[in-house]
Amino acid sequence: MAESSGAQRPVRVALDAMGGDHAPAAAVEGAVLAARAYGCEVQLVGRADDIGPELARHDIKGLQHLLPVVHAPDVILMNEHPASAVRSKRQSSMAVAVGRVKAGQANCFVSAGNTGAILATALLGFRRIDGITSERPALAAPIPGPRASTILLDAGANVDCKPEWLAQFALMGSLYAELLWDRPNPRVATLSIGEEEGKGNAQLVAAIPLIRALPINYVGNVQGTDVSASVVDVVVADGFAGNIYLKGAEGIVAAFTELLRDELTRSLPRQLMAAALRPAFRALRGRMSYEEYGGVPLLGVNGVCVKAHGRSTGYALQNAIRVGMQCVRLDLVARIRERMADASRAPPAAMTRL
Amino acid sequence: MAESSGAQRPVRVALDAMGGDHAPAAAVEGAVLAARAYGCEVQLVGRADDIGPELARHDIKGLQHLLPVVHAPDVILMNEHPASAVRSKRQSSMAVAVGRVKAGQANCFVSAGNTGAILATALLGFRRIDGITSERPALAAPIPGPRASTILLDAGANVDCKPEWLAQFALMGSLYAELLWDRPNPRVATLSIGEEEGKGNAQLVAAIPLIRALPINYVGNVQGTDVSASVVDVVVADGFAGNIYLKGAEGIVAAFTELLRDELTRSLPRQLMAAALRPAFRALRGRMSYEEYGGVPLLGVNGVCVKAHGRSTGYALQNAIRVGMQCVRLDLVARIRERMADASRAPPAAMTRL
Repeated sequence: MAESSGAQRPVRVALDAMGGDHAPAAAVEGAVLAARAYGCEVQLVGRADDIGPELARHDIKGLQHLLPVVHAPDVILMNEHPASAVRSKRQSSMAVAVGRVKAGQANCFVSAGNTGAILATALLGFRRIDGITSERPALAAPIPGPRASTILLDAGANVDCKPEWLAQFALMGSLYAELLWDRPNPRVATLSIGEEEGKGNAQLVAAIPLIRALPINYVGNVQGTDVSASVVDVVVADGFAGNIYLKGAEGIVAAFTELLRDELTRSLPRQLMAAALRPAFRALRGRMSYEEYGGVPLLGVNGVCVKAHGRSTGYALQNAIRVGMQCVRLDLVARIRERMADASRAPPAAMTRL
Repeated sequence: MAESSGAQRPVRVALDAMGGDHAPAAAVEGAVLAARAYGCEVQLVGRADDIGPELARHDIKGLQHLLPVVHAPDVILMNEHPASAVRSKRQSSMAVAVGRVKAGQANCFVSAGNTGAILATALLGFRRIDGITSERPALAAPIPGPRASTILLDAGANVDCKPEWLAQFALMGSLYAELLWDRPNPRVATLSIGEEEGKGNAQLVAAIPLIRALPINYVGNVQGTDVSASVVDVVVADGFAGNIYLKGAEGIVAAFTELLRDELTRSLPRQLMAAALRPAFRALRGRMSYEEYGGVPLLGVNGVCVKAHGRSTGYALQNAIRVGMQCVRLDLVARIRERMADASRAPPAAMTRL
């Protein structure tokens, strides 16, 4: 399959140039930044008439060959109903980009567009990996912490989860952390409202025996406080709780930043000192911002697919492209396929329920 | 009933002096601070032998009459199994304190102890308000935002919620916000993963028609980002999602604070400027800290009951006592009873399902 590229060849990215609140400007900027920084090929997929003028605004001397425009006539809007948009717009930038990955013309798909449409297009185009039964692929979001990041999945794709889906997320999350950080036996936890076994809602309580039976380093429940405390490597949640955590965290960072700005501009002396400390605040923002992390891989389908934040800037999209390249280089999809195949063959018995 | 005291008489608080990570020291300190600041009576309920020496460490001249010690021989530990502890320890500080409220010897119960035990003791002692059918009372937590606070309920008591419980939380939350902030028609939202109606897990989707039928200002779904953005007054969630949000927010504030400290101590010039800005950082911490908010009322039982954070300091407990006094002064329990009685009598039809 197309997604398992050699580690030496330059990665080719199919970028949805029409997705995101600031499309196509941010997408084009992200592509230029990524081509320059990483030497990767970024195929700008979308309406050629919209992309061309944006590309002309950048100085891309020496990079032209890395930035081909691939025309796709249809655009899926940010607030469109995902299922019907995907059904009716067969020539959307998303569908064409996924088609290129399937055809081996690109190694990964990156989009800052309509989340539901990204999930549906990836599922329709790439299909589930054998053994994965969740309604949609899982969003594996990085959560920054003071010492290390933690991967949270599912961060919002699957709302009501069957217990075996949560076990599948645990298996995929563990493998992703292992490959991403070259860390054997990453610590995997489930997100709950107390650490004691038995704490949690019905779907979680039913999932825990399945997760315990997996060949991973499952350490039990953690609470919301622990996700950003760098105490485990992977946190498994259903997409409802995971999304509320993730969006909640984003909101708290925004509130904290606003309150900090408010306090630091209360008087002229404070303003002057705060101005001198600007590099510290900028570094802090970098360490807490989704822009730095850029994108969230979708795990569980036969193709590398990275979802960037709808509000992504060019810089955020550069980082989303970096995440896609990483997944390609790690051969993540083929490794998940292997691991799922092993899991379905091997004891213990509970594994077969996956 | 005992909880509906006159607005003029001083409020009498039954404080669980043995609950919390820093009991009894923090509880005694909180009682002294509250008696001094508000002139309320704070009954220190717990092991007299432990409380006496702590009380002797404070200068309480002129306050002695406000700080009676009420002996209770049993102590429920923080990590004890709530149901069995409540069953076996009939003379616990919690049980005795709740008993005093029931007997009219105090107006409200405040504890920083084992959350499950607080919920069970309050439920057993006070019983549910007529029309409330949730397994436990709902925790109504204040979430600070840059412009105003938002009440989030349930913040962790009821894990798997029936749709009608969510509707009951919406009704009680709306009333609490109305009384607390003297704000007619507070904006009530449901917490979900998208704003469109129909987004959410099964229990939420089933609850929305019941909530729409209530005589409240229901504005639809909000996402995690919105809870701390001061856009609505009340956010309704099941206790699983609500707790993950609340604990997640606490963790993000801690991570942000740690990263900020890290950045501001990287060099001597930064350290010096940061030291000069200490009042700003202290004010910021005050605006984001649970210590300032102090306590979370339990809504749905026939008595005022406030749960403080297990890690509460004396100052946090002073604030929890303030929250309890507020609920007494607002006559919150009697008002919820009235509102529930109205709801069960009146059209629209869906109300009767409450």
